[in-house]
Amino acid sequence: MSTVIRLNEKLREIEKHWTPGIVAAVNDYHVKLAKISGEFTWHSHADTDEMFLVLHGCMTIQLRDDSVTLNEGDLYVVPKGVEHKPVAGQECHILLLEPAGTVNTGDTPGELTVDQPQWL
Amino acid sequence: MSTVIRLNEKLREIEKHWTPGIVAAVNDYHVKLAKISGEFTWHSHADTDEMFLVLHGCMTIQLRDDSVTLNEGDLYVVPKGVEHKPVAGQECHILLLEPAGTVNTGDTPGELTVDQPQWL
Repeated sequence: MSTVIRLNEKLREIEKHWTPGIVAAVNDYHVKLAKISGEFTWHSHADTDEMFLVLHGCMTIQLRDDSVTLNEGDLYVVPKGVEHKPVAGQECHILLLEPAGTVNTGDTPGELTVDQPQWL
Repeated sequence: MSTVIRLNEKLREIEKHWTPGIVAAVNDYHVKLAKISGEFTWHSHADTDEMFLVLHGCMTIQLRDDSVTLNEGDLYVVPKGVEHKPVAGQECHILLLEPAGTVNTGDTPGELTVDQPQWL
């Protein structure tokens, strides 16, 4: 049977920035949590949309021709194929939703790539 | 381009209990918000898991052989095919994630059925 997932408890298990951990599966999608701080890399996901929900703090998602700022309780979906760069001036806690197997750095692998995110 | 979805603003647009409204699409999934109070109907979804996230308040999901209580910031996935009955003693605000077209009452249509949820 499923168990209740207390997001704040799961967040406490995350030590490293930009390293999403999986907390739930919904069919073939994964719900992930991440702590972010500083600048991520520009990337896109050719095959999927990606949902961001800010749980604590504030982040900006830079887009090539725009940017959006998300505060606590704000949700945003980056459409598939759209280049984006997440940035957080201070530590920010986010919930992500995307198909299982989606790699965090999309089409631009590098030192921040997490190929196989762990379950929290 | 997508826009930022402020969940608290969207919640203010909901007047009726047990009437989910769509706030975002992630590929072929819909993110919905609902205000719930009282007892829903027993039902299951034969083809899909269903994710609940409590944004404000507290709810219980009764299962045939168990029940789980979710407070603010708690997330739970009802596995596909599992009978469940959401209940809230006081008004509770929730975020739901499920494939587009999932009907709220699943296999037990009735007066609480929302065949075509509206976008908020």
